[in-house]
Amino acid sequence: MTSARTRGPVRIVGAGLLGASIGLALQEKGVEVQLADASRAAVRLAADYGAGRPAADGDAPALVVVAVPPEAVAEIVARELEAFPDALVTDVASVKSGILAELTAAGADLARYVGSHPMAGRERGGAVSARADLFLGRPWVLAPHDGVAEAHLHAIEDLALDVGARPLRMDAARHDHGVALVSHVPQLVASLLAARLVDAPDAEVGLAGQGLRDTTRIAGSNPELWVQILGANAAAVAEILTAYRADLDRVIHALHDPERVGAPRTVAEALVAGNEGVARIPGKHGQDRRFATLLVTVPDEPGELGRLLTEIGEEGVNMEDLRLEHSPGAQVGFAEIAVLPEAAHRLAAALESRGWSLSEPGRNA
Amino acid sequence: MTSARTRGPVRIVGAGLLGASIGLALQEKGVEVQLADASRAAVRLAADYGAGRPAADGDAPALVVVAVPPEAVAEIVARELEAFPDALVTDVASVKSGILAELTAAGADLARYVGSHPMAGRERGGAVSARADLFLGRPWVLAPHDGVAEAHLHAIEDLALDVGARPLRMDAARHDHGVALVSHVPQLVASLLAARLVDAPDAEVGLAGQGLRDTTRIAGSNPELWVQILGANAAAVAEILTAYRADLDRVIHALHDPERVGAPRTVAEALVAGNEGVARIPGKHGQDRRFATLLVTVPDEPGELGRLLTEIGEEGVNMEDLRLEHSPGAQVGFAEIAVLPEAAHRLAAALESRGWSLSEPGRNA
Repeated sequence: MTSARTRGPVRIVGAGLLGASIGLALQEKGVEVQLADASRAAVRLAADYGAGRPAADGDAPALVVVAVPPEAVAEIVARELEAFPDALVTDVASVKSGILAELTAAGADLARYVGSHPMAGRERGGAVSARADLFLGRPWVLAPHDGVAEAHLHAIEDLALDVGARPLRMDAARHDHGVALVSHVPQLVASLLAARLVDAPDAEVGLAGQGLRDTTRIAGSNPELWVQILGANAAAVAEILTAYRADLDRVIHALHDPERVGAPRTVAEALVAGNEGVARIPGKHGQDRRFATLLVTVPDEPGELGRLLTEIGEEGVNMEDLRLEHSPGAQVGFAEIAVLPEAAHRLAAALESRGWSLSEPGRNA
Repeated sequence: MTSARTRGPVRIVGAGLLGASIGLALQEKGVEVQLADASRAAVRLAADYGAGRPAADGDAPALVVVAVPPEAVAEIVARELEAFPDALVTDVASVKSGILAELTAAGADLARYVGSHPMAGRERGGAVSARADLFLGRPWVLAPHDGVAEAHLHAIEDLALDVGARPLRMDAARHDHGVALVSHVPQLVASLLAARLVDAPDAEVGLAGQGLRDTTRIAGSNPELWVQILGANAAAVAEILTAYRADLDRVIHALHDPERVGAPRTVAEALVAGNEGVARIPGKHGQDRRFATLLVTVPDEPGELGRLLTEIGEEGVNMEDLRLEHSPGAQVGFAEIAVLPEAAHRLAAALESRGWSLSEPGRNA
């Protein structure tokens, strides 16, 4: 157990998915966690799970994390700032500008408040879905307002690091526009797509496969929660949805007249732009555009793959990524090897001269 | 190796993802497969992979499977019907009405043609992505036109069964509307969403997580192929997209005036409809609505889960599904047990009287 950066105790208000996950992760680090929630049952469940101990009178937290539903955040943050005058208070709500405005209007002690947002979640909420590793590698956005002490920001960054997240700082307006783009608009787009299935014949819905399942997965999310999130970020969401609708109109217009030369181009442009947009999303997503890919046929015999990798090493080429394709019952597999573009041509020639058979990588269909 | 229903030899025209996967699956069954493709390299790759042998002069296939790009299908089907006057010919294109119309106009021998569509694919195409198990459990739609002999339909159904698919029959128009709903419209919706990312600041795109990745995954698909598919099914796709746009307009209107009482309701309705739509998609997708779920806390000790399942059996309750939740480092896990609603209450009481602690299942957030 590596020692914690956070100087506890930490009070977590809201024992749902995020609150309980933060508690589990901090407890693993040996930080004392005090759990509070309007629901005693929720506190008991989270405590049983190992997310902390129920809060008690006389608790003196150094840090309070408010993880309640969006509409309640500002009120609870103000309450906690008053209840614990020596504590630093943060919240984990997914929209930041409105909360700061509410706290300012309420005359809260903003010097001890830092708004933040861990970019993590699951399809299902509640402490039962909590995981100590929920935040691993995920961004944890700090949206500092003017005049917050650097020491306070460091304390929240330590909290983020303790749960395995990547802390970063972002202006609240920029953050809110960003989550509208990568989270709130996708939620509505997926919900509206899934809504098309409600009145569809069983025979048609029965044709659905993984593509539709992935595209609509987040449409299973909690409407009560999402009405609050979307209401809090309505302007940014509406702006992006309006641009989305303009593209949609062009596609529908083109489909109504498929003979027009312009039509296929219009639709094709949307599909090509989709390729480009997907390529910008961080994390593995098809091939990494920075590398060239060699496709080598590997006989399905012991040691053949090892021999290939050894010989690539002998050629002094650094392999950036390796992906294997092998079908049940096939006599051979394929090793997809990602290398720097400048090395690809030489390596291909060297491998062929060593007797390996290379092929063209397939295009996603 | 179970014996094949298909009376080969089978000629496959088009050694891409679908053609090579059919070949791999048929070869596993011991069916002779002859591979043809405009690209010699594609045939060689598929043959190396074990999908069959290159086609040769004098081949006399009993069945021809045309698996070429959509725009070429009708022409190739007509050519194959002429080249092999004793063979039954099918195609695997994802839109059926237009091909039948083209073949009719060309005066092809429709008595030996059956249009079909295996509902399977992968993000990436080409023989390199082929898998013998690509069709396992997937629907393989037959779209028979009037006057096709029942024996011919059985032959295609045998082909589908030999590759592990579920053959079913559907009117071509119904099929084309169905794939527009579950495949073609989702493709455009995902592409248009991903297109919003093209000009977005890195800092905003950097906030993306699994939700956006899933929602846009199919936006990585091949534009050249999809322009052909969407062009061939333009009317059905445009009809569904137009209804989708009407819902989208209502949401955008509501977001522009979030104070209106109607506004949250409008947005909430879209989110609730999304829940209902997702629940209709076959395959595991959150909880199965037919069952009630009990959430039992299980101490993280050897034998505890086994004891729970034994005691459920002792209560004479049949467990429809079991899902486990356990966080790294947690002292307990949770067993989510799906049972018939009528049994849920009695089982909950029995388990609590046996000393188990039950909780409320979390709602997807």
